[in-house]
Amino acid sequence: MSQTLARVAQTIESRKLENGGDPATSYVSRLFSKGDDAILKKIGEEATELVMAAKDARVDGDVSKVLYECADLWFHSLVLLAQFDLSPQQVLDELARREGLSGLAEKAARPS
Amino acid sequence: MSQTLARVAQTIESRKLENGGDPATSYVSRLFSKGDDAILKKIGEEATELVMAAKDARVDGDVSKVLYECADLWFHSLVLLAQFDLSPQQVLDELARREGLSGLAEKAARPS
Amino acid sequence: MSQTLARVAQTIESRKLENGGDPATSYVSRLFSKGDDAILKKIGEEATELVMAAKDARVDGDVSKVLYECADLWFHSLVLLAQFDLSPQQVLDELARREGLSGLAEKAARPS
Amino acid sequence: MSQTLARVAQTIESRKLENGGDPATSYVSRLFSKGDDAILKKIGEEATELVMAAKDARVDGDVSKVLYECADLWFHSLVLLAQFDLSPQQVLDELARREGLSGLAEKAARPS
Repeated sequence: MSQTLARVAQTIESRKLENGGDPATSYVSRLFSKGDDAILKKIGEEATELVMAAKDARVDGDVSKVLYECADLWFHSLVLLAQFDLSPQQVLDELARREGLSGLAEKAARPS
Repeated sequence: MSQTLARVAQTIESRKLENGGDPATSYVSRLFSKGDDAILKKIGEEATELVMAAKDARVDGDVSKVLYECADLWFHSLVLLAQFDLSPQQVLDELARREGLSGLAEKAARPS
Repeated sequence: MSQTLARVAQTIESRKLENGGDPATSYVSRLFSKGDDAILKKIGEEATELVMAAKDARVDGDVSKVLYECADLWFHSLVLLAQFDLSPQQVLDELARREGLSGLAEKAARPS
Repeated sequence: MSQTLARVAQTIESRKLENGGDPATSYVSRLFSKGDDAILKKIGEEATELVMAAKDARVDGDVSKVLYECADLWFHSLVLLAQFDLSPQQVLDELARREGLSGLAEKAARPS
């Protein structure tokens, strides 16, 4: 897996209340202490911000906000995964599984 | 970077119309042929589906739909990144940068 | 209540399967036959489309798409309300209740 | 038009900065002072909250949160309309126009 995803997931894990995370000092611990709805609300919010950033980028040519908002969306996805005791590796495995299927589909479609 | 993210990003890139992608046979080429709004609409849609999957998982205990919908959301993020000629590595770099900053913040907050 | 809201709500009600709505010929009946998730997915989708329309309107000055997408969002809200046997009047009542409260808050804040 | 929608729209209008609205005391004036993105972010957020409320209602049977979140979504739609100098009547007109079309479509489909 990407070292970065693994490291960020590990940090997020360490912010869980049962791992000593402190809502008073950590944003992620605060999300965990609020529970599912607070995290899901952020998913909806960050998706909207990514959409707005992409629209803005077509006007001002500044794509860095697209990167920034995509990072925000992925980050909060990682918090959601942790909340359900899932790991980013499992999401990557699912993406790899589909990629394999699509590869097979392509091979099947190729003239012999 | 994660080999999977790199491979999926590469496949997505190959589906661009200028790289020979065919809207008639490829879902991703179809998204590219429709343009920004079709991709952004999918971001909003997949975020909503992830929220619903998480809600369902709390009722039926089946977390696999959370994984599946998260994969869908990440996949369409990768399509959006490709649409803006950005790479997943740049998103990971942004996440790593923040992780570094948060590490520094922690160090600074630690009693000497 | 607005005659339009009442009329649209009534039409939506008539599209329920138990009221003889036919998924083969009616879009709304089709949504009802698919159930909660199909309707909720539309809420997320239409909200995203409203956001995009507003962004576009700032670029091309055409606000009619904002109206059109807002109508879409309200329409699918009405379908959701019907799915839960709620009426738009109840939403208006809630808005009126808050308006009253805010009026009271203002009165209380006014110097005598 | 619904008296409630008209009244709420009028209150929102009075909260615009150019009409004397004060961001220090009014939530709506604060939204106007922040501009488009703050309002659009709320649209995405409230749509997500409506989706979550509907999911919750199927579990705990409490539909009042669906009403409450729908009112929130409509309220912020009204703020967005005001931001673009549009009125709820125009949205209702669009809904009535479609209702008329659908009525005509039905009549046309009816055997003579």
